[in-house]
Amino acid sequence: MANAIGKMFRLTSFGESHGGAVGGVIEGCPPGLALSVKEIQKELDRRRPGQSVLSTSRQEEDKVEILSGLFEGKTTGMPIGFIVRNRDSRSRDYDHLREVYRPSHADFTWEKKYGVRDYRGGGRASAREHIARVVAGAVAKQVLAISGVSICAFAEQVGTVELESPWQKLDLSKKDLNAVRCPDEQKAVEMATLIGQVREKGDSVGGVVGCVMKGVPVGLGEPVFDRFQARLAFAMMSINAAKGFEYGEGFAAAAMQGSGHNDVWEMREGKMRTLTNHSGGIQGGVTNGEDIYFRVAFKPVSTIAVKQRTVDHSGNEVELEAHGRHDPCVVPRAVPVVEAMAAIVTLDFLLEAQACKLPDVYASDK
Amino acid sequence: MANAIGKMFRLTSFGESHGGAVGGVIEGCPPGLALSVKEIQKELDRRRPGQSVLSTSRQEEDKVEILSGLFEGKTTGMPIGFIVRNRDSRSRDYDHLREVYRPSHADFTWEKKYGVRDYRGGGRASAREHIARVVAGAVAKQVLAISGVSICAFAEQVGTVELESPWQKLDLSKKDLNAVRCPDEQKAVEMATLIGQVREKGDSVGGVVGCVMKGVPVGLGEPVFDRFQARLAFAMMSINAAKGFEYGEGFAAAAMQGSGHNDVWEMREGKMRTLTNHSGGIQGGVTNGEDIYFRVAFKPVSTIAVKQRTVDHSGNEVELEAHGRHDPCVVPRAVPVVEAMAAIVTLDFLLEAQACKLPDVYASDK
Amino acid sequence: MANAIGKMFRLTSFGESHGGAVGGVIEGCPPGLALSVKEIQKELDRRRPGQSVLSTSRQEEDKVEILSGLFEGKTTGMPIGFIVRNRDSRSRDYDHLREVYRPSHADFTWEKKYGVRDYRGGGRASAREHIARVVAGAVAKQVLAISGVSICAFAEQVGTVELESPWQKLDLSKKDLNAVRCPDEQKAVEMATLIGQVREKGDSVGGVVGCVMKGVPVGLGEPVFDRFQARLAFAMMSINAAKGFEYGEGFAAAAMQGSGHNDVWEMREGKMRTLTNHSGGIQGGVTNGEDIYFRVAFKPVSTIAVKQRTVDHSGNEVELEAHGRHDPCVVPRAVPVVEAMAAIVTLDFLLEAQACKLPDVYASDK
Amino acid sequence: MANAIGKMFRLTSFGESHGGAVGGVIEGCPPGLALSVKEIQKELDRRRPGQSVLSTSRQEEDKVEILSGLFEGKTTGMPIGFIVRNRDSRSRDYDHLREVYRPSHADFTWEKKYGVRDYRGGGRASAREHIARVVAGAVAKQVLAISGVSICAFAEQVGTVELESPWQKLDLSKKDLNAVRCPDEQKAVEMATLIGQVREKGDSVGGVVGCVMKGVPVGLGEPVFDRFQARLAFAMMSINAAKGFEYGEGFAAAAMQGSGHNDVWEMREGKMRTLTNHSGGIQGGVTNGEDIYFRVAFKPVSTIAVKQRTVDHSGNEVELEAHGRHDPCVVPRAVPVVEAMAAIVTLDFLLEAQACKLPDVYASDK
Repeated sequence: MANAIGKMFRLTSFGESHGGAVGGVIEGCPPGLALSVKEIQKELDRRRPGQSVLSTSRQEEDKVEILSGLFEGKTTGMPIGFIVRNRDSRSRDYDHLREVYRPSHADFTWEKKYGVRDYRGGGRASAREHIARVVAGAVAKQVLAISGVSICAFAEQVGTVELESPWQKLDLSKKDLNAVRCPDEQKAVEMATLIGQVREKGDSVGGVVGCVMKGVPVGLGEPVFDRFQARLAFAMMSINAAKGFEYGEGFAAAAMQGSGHNDVWEMREGKMRTLTNHSGGIQGGVTNGEDIYFRVAFKPVSTIAVKQRTVDHSGNEVELEAHGRHDPCVVPRAVPVVEAMAAIVTLDFLLEAQACKLPDVYASDK
Repeated sequence: MANAIGKMFRLTSFGESHGGAVGGVIEGCPPGLALSVKEIQKELDRRRPGQSVLSTSRQEEDKVEILSGLFEGKTTGMPIGFIVRNRDSRSRDYDHLREVYRPSHADFTWEKKYGVRDYRGGGRASAREHIARVVAGAVAKQVLAISGVSICAFAEQVGTVELESPWQKLDLSKKDLNAVRCPDEQKAVEMATLIGQVREKGDSVGGVVGCVMKGVPVGLGEPVFDRFQARLAFAMMSINAAKGFEYGEGFAAAAMQGSGHNDVWEMREGKMRTLTNHSGGIQGGVTNGEDIYFRVAFKPVSTIAVKQRTVDHSGNEVELEAHGRHDPCVVPRAVPVVEAMAAIVTLDFLLEAQACKLPDVYASDK
Repeated sequence: MANAIGKMFRLTSFGESHGGAVGGVIEGCPPGLALSVKEIQKELDRRRPGQSVLSTSRQEEDKVEILSGLFEGKTTGMPIGFIVRNRDSRSRDYDHLREVYRPSHADFTWEKKYGVRDYRGGGRASAREHIARVVAGAVAKQVLAISGVSICAFAEQVGTVELESPWQKLDLSKKDLNAVRCPDEQKAVEMATLIGQVREKGDSVGGVVGCVMKGVPVGLGEPVFDRFQARLAFAMMSINAAKGFEYGEGFAAAAMQGSGHNDVWEMREGKMRTLTNHSGGIQGGVTNGEDIYFRVAFKPVSTIAVKQRTVDHSGNEVELEAHGRHDPCVVPRAVPVVEAMAAIVTLDFLLEAQACKLPDVYASDK
Repeated sequence: MANAIGKMFRLTSFGESHGGAVGGVIEGCPPGLALSVKEIQKELDRRRPGQSVLSTSRQEEDKVEILSGLFEGKTTGMPIGFIVRNRDSRSRDYDHLREVYRPSHADFTWEKKYGVRDYRGGGRASAREHIARVVAGAVAKQVLAISGVSICAFAEQVGTVELESPWQKLDLSKKDLNAVRCPDEQKAVEMATLIGQVREKGDSVGGVVGCVMKGVPVGLGEPVFDRFQARLAFAMMSINAAKGFEYGEGFAAAAMQGSGHNDVWEMREGKMRTLTNHSGGIQGGVTNGEDIYFRVAFKPVSTIAVKQRTVDHSGNEVELEAHGRHDPCVVPRAVPVVEAMAAIVTLDFLLEAQACKLPDVYASDK
């Protein structure tokens, strides 16, 4: 029952892997925006399966159709309904799964919860649901661009291969030059090689996506529960296969002392700035104008071709060898999803911050 | 504007460190529960300042007054309003902070956001706000106990001192025997020693709180955004000083391969069970009946007595030496807060799951 | 930004009169329901334009396409996405309105609010938006039928023609036998005649829709704000052209005294029942098991062919003669919309009531 | 579970008639407002029981205590927690009701819903719950005053005594000069006389409260569900004893034709204005800058001293003679409650409208 995210900028999504379409409704996009549908499609293309040998062989063009909310190329303030048709859904590939619970999948828990299971391609548990997020994120990015906000996610780790430079030193402009979406060329090659090896074995591998947001204004985030990092964590942990979230120093902060972790204030070019950025751009739950930095850990995909023991509907222990198409590593295609979710959260806070003022601004409009 | 958490079981909180009281309103507590106010007070006492030398010297009895929602000792289904008066608030201690932005505090961001700042004891950014969470959590725990759910958080790491045994091997019953709330006696001593050393220097230190939930029924969590882990992450990242959240293998899963991370199904005592629990009790965003395990990282408290550079209201760079009372490490007092937030989230999902069914059950009540 | 209604059973709608499609997402439909798409289409057909001479001549087949949430004919608990394509949209008919604000329409207020206006057919202010409501209502009705709830709206008044019998005496089974949807045959003829006369003049006329709900269980409605009548009023007042809402005795109660208005309790067939039903089936905001009765007043449609003065974009006073197709009276086509909204509200409360219990029921499922 | 109202400006209320206190939490009050607690108390005094012979003899000073959200006399953007202690609660007066269901009260429905009943003074079903609304409304009024919005409710009808002049002709400044709160002195006397007669008989009488809002800016209200009139209706129908809501022409519009009901546009003092105001200041769900006018019908209070038949706990038919103190007519004390709810709704929309814009305004603040 919780297929929506956001308060002022809100996405309600629907759709299964092998149903008629996946899609959604975007509410709260400010009116008067010259929305580029081309930009939305570009983001979808970044997430699309079949882009490289690193991802599933399912072929989908993932063409978005905007059904409402636009008039003469501009947003009207009305909800933006959209759909993306499913094309290459080979439901028969999943017939052998009808009776079987795949390890570490949603199969068992969802069936227990709902009493029914759409076993074709994982149903709504499929990562195809992320399409709606990417569309909404692409809309949000266009609004955020007006305020000078940019969002850049990238591969930080694939299996045991990790970036070595701290995030501040990375040349993020390079990250889309390779299929893994890693800003360090050498590491990108290593990561791709590892993914290839794992794929050959029919196995999968985990990873970490990092994300840097620049230009986020001071003052976003709502104390005390809806802190910037809290809604960000919520959004990230709602992505398939996400296992962990941290911002700023994250778990490393646990080993630090206050005198080393505190970000000292100074004046720089007439502005309050911090000398360091252990805080990751957020203090007291509210953005402080510095770059926002966070990381999301992903588990290795549960679908593997390696033989596994499991249990079927009737409680018999059986062997499972999955045939469905899958990604050996989610990281490359998770990068645009992480960006999309970050954009949705940030715009939501930006609009909410506008509401949170004495109404003189509005009154002057009368 | 976001001082509430939960959907079916909901806490709305209010109150500042040095105002008249902190308090809240709990909605959605099922009717007919014989609520023990004593149990609530016991939880508050676990969080109360001044319990040991490891925490701030502020003396507060933190006595809860329940104002509504109870009749003849039972909950009525009506909202439970409650307050806890502030007693030992030495607002003068904070006069020297009136003009100064403390490093890594909410001072600057909140003032920029709201145009005003209640500088006395951190105002609403103070950890005294956690009192409302602990009260609501204590109510939730009593409802959850009916379903056989128990929640146990504990110190996993303080600075560089970490538990070595995996969580499955810990004897959690021991964790309340020491002031640090660590289930490993030897490590507890080391942690306490480290906190003592840090305090002496006027510094602070970070840490990690782990949490195990037992008896959570299969089927809690709402796809696709409101996954169990997503709302749990939200709740944990809304706690003061939290920097990271992970569940199951968490960030360690990034380095693993699917064949090693997948939890194989088997039948045990007539039930579907997993052989391992890398998933931390959650699959596809929904609980699978195994123990739920998650971890929260905390930064070292920002308030330290060590001299620091900073900037004042007029943009002058100044030196700051804080006098306010503070905890050298949040971990011991964060333990009951983590439990409280976990209880709130879990009960919220439990009640929501009841709603998500065909209405025959209800109809039969007519 | 508020294109959704409902909490546990929730419709998010989108779409304009002359855009690609109108549609929506239904969340919270319980899983396991054998959903009849035919029944949904039947409800849409009741609202469809061009059914009789009493309504607009726009020809739309209003064919619903369900995009998700169904598997092998049953609901899965996942969101039900749906669209209805717009076919007969003659946008050119509206070119003459581009510069002009029509009296008592949304033209001026929405343009002032959003800075843009989709003038084609009223854009999202068009009653075509009701399509999404009827689809969601048709789903809700199927769930409610399981609990024995039936909902029946009908024409009570058209212009100066009013029903004379009290609602308890009406034979509601007759109401769908005529185009006006009035259970009194004689009055139906008078109403149809009046609508015909008004249409001939190019004018429009108002009316009242009454609604009776039978079989609603005791205990629906949430004190203190979300009373049954409060959410019902909200839902009804969100329908285009609605001007008033009342339940039970409604405005007539203002002239009554307590001794005449109170519904005395008695035992009937072993159940607590009221002797009279001035309360309209709701007491203290919660249903009492008696029939629920309410009424919704509708204004005469603002679009008329009669010449009117108005003002254009540049502030010039001009004469307006509208050519767009319109209904001379909303009542006949509002009847299925009122039923749909009542169904959405009632199911929402039914599911919420299931949540509001001690969790033993759920626990026993484990 | 629905003890809150509002989205951006939000009141969460708690408390029973004979519990420790009634109170609430106000979220979303913009920061920087010089809040007058005296003004809040003044509004409470208008609602207080025991003001005149027209109301219940219960003596309560209804003194508000603000617990948070204020610093040096200004709002901080933090939640405003408040309580009002119950003083004169003679719970014993209600002992005779313990076993009996009073006609047309919440007794039966709430007990059936919750399984428990706080019978003392109606528990939370008591109109004392309105106190929280009046406090929140008094805060909202102070914010609205900045935008030049004023709200004035008044007695339009008591039993069979009705105002004769249309609302546009009333001198609303006079309405607080008499205990009934009626702007027509002659009618005020007649109303008071009728209330006196009814009280003498131990009976009660219904009535209608009208309300006019001036200065509401163009553009408030959110299509399509959250129309201005829809949330207004929701708020009004959530008041105890409310039976109907209408705005503009309301139910009278049902008998009108479009050519007579449409509000023709004209230019007046350089502004778009309507010649008439049948619309009651709202078109397409959004305010149009004209005065907003609506009416709320109230039933006669259910508590009467007249003997009535009813049923007790064990299903026996018994006679009931109520002794509790009560108002013979809710109208005089409902007037400030209607104003409060109107203020809450209007401010909520005003803040929401601020959010609904392209973020350049906010960006310029950086």
